[in-house]
Amino acid sequence: MNQNALELLEQRRSCRAYRPEQITEEELQAVVKAGTYAPTGMGRQSPIIVVVQDRETIDALNQMNAAIMGNPEANPFYGAPTVLIVLADKNIPTHFYDGCCVMDNLLNAAEAAGLGSCWIHRAREEFESAEGKALLAKWGIEGDYVGIGHCILGYREGDRPAPAPRKENYVYYVR
Amino acid sequence: MNQNALELLEQRRSCRAYRPEQITEEELQAVVKAGTYAPTGMGRQSPIIVVVQDRETIDALNQMNAAIMGNPEANPFYGAPTVLIVLADKNIPTHFYDGCCVMDNLLNAAEAAGLGSCWIHRAREEFESAEGKALLAKWGIEGDYVGIGHCILGYREGDRPAPAPRKENYVYYVR
Repeated sequence: MNQNALELLEQRRSCRAYRPEQITEEELQAVVKAGTYAPTGMGRQSPIIVVVQDRETIDALNQMNAAIMGNPEANPFYGAPTVLIVLADKNIPTHFYDGCCVMDNLLNAAEAAGLGSCWIHRAREEFESAEGKALLAKWGIEGDYVGIGHCILGYREGDRPAPAPRKENYVYYVR
Repeated sequence: MNQNALELLEQRRSCRAYRPEQITEEELQAVVKAGTYAPTGMGRQSPIIVVVQDRETIDALNQMNAAIMGNPEANPFYGAPTVLIVLADKNIPTHFYDGCCVMDNLLNAAEAAGLGSCWIHRAREEFESAEGKALLAKWGIEGDYVGIGHCILGYREGDRPAPAPRKENYVYYVR
């Protein structure tokens, strides 16, 4: 048993405070690569990953996301210097499941790369909007993509918190 | 960087041929634990995991699953000796995303534990049916649970195949 990898899966925690400096290209590529190797239905690789490191674009996404939350003053991306957006091709029946597996792999790989990360929701609403569709077009992304989630990345400010206790009755046995 | 864990995320492959013997309790618990530590929206832990190791129940699920496929002669669980069913509480808005993260963690943990695994779909249809609802009731599971997926587990028969090449344009950059 690879205890080291098992512990990593248990130790990953969401990070909501980031240092301002950008992550290295090596760290970014390690995380993104693990995302692309996530399982997908029949291996059809329905998702795509958009790496956003341009501050102006991150700020625009942050504002759109806050507006969808109904709180324009919010800072949903927590100032993280990198935002990975996962979208998936809705013509493939398993696209929603596939996109979530990419997201989970990105979060776990971030932990393995020593980075802080957090899943930020509302990608679906973002890329259903005219503003979101215009961004996809600007980025050269064509097709029927649904927003699955944002994985924000950066160096953690402060310590990794301890996990909350797992709920009772998480696991049932039939044997 | 934890190269070992990163490689594991890239090396995991679906397994579709299993040896008949049951996995050890230690292996099972390692996989299940990693599932319970998957990220969930606001840490609400909306999923549950049902561990099925009873041959009769696995055969019944296999038959239901094959019928949903439209091919009653199929063997969708490939004879795996353990089936983990992930369901999620539909009253929690992020339940679908949460359940998929549990599934992905289970698959990655199986790889870390040296086991073969595969995501088998059609859990939603299974547990929407009267037969599926009767099984949940029999297992003592109450509430509004939606089937997310089955993670089948066992010892791999044969070698782990090489991964298919990743598609072009999996990753876009905005920077």
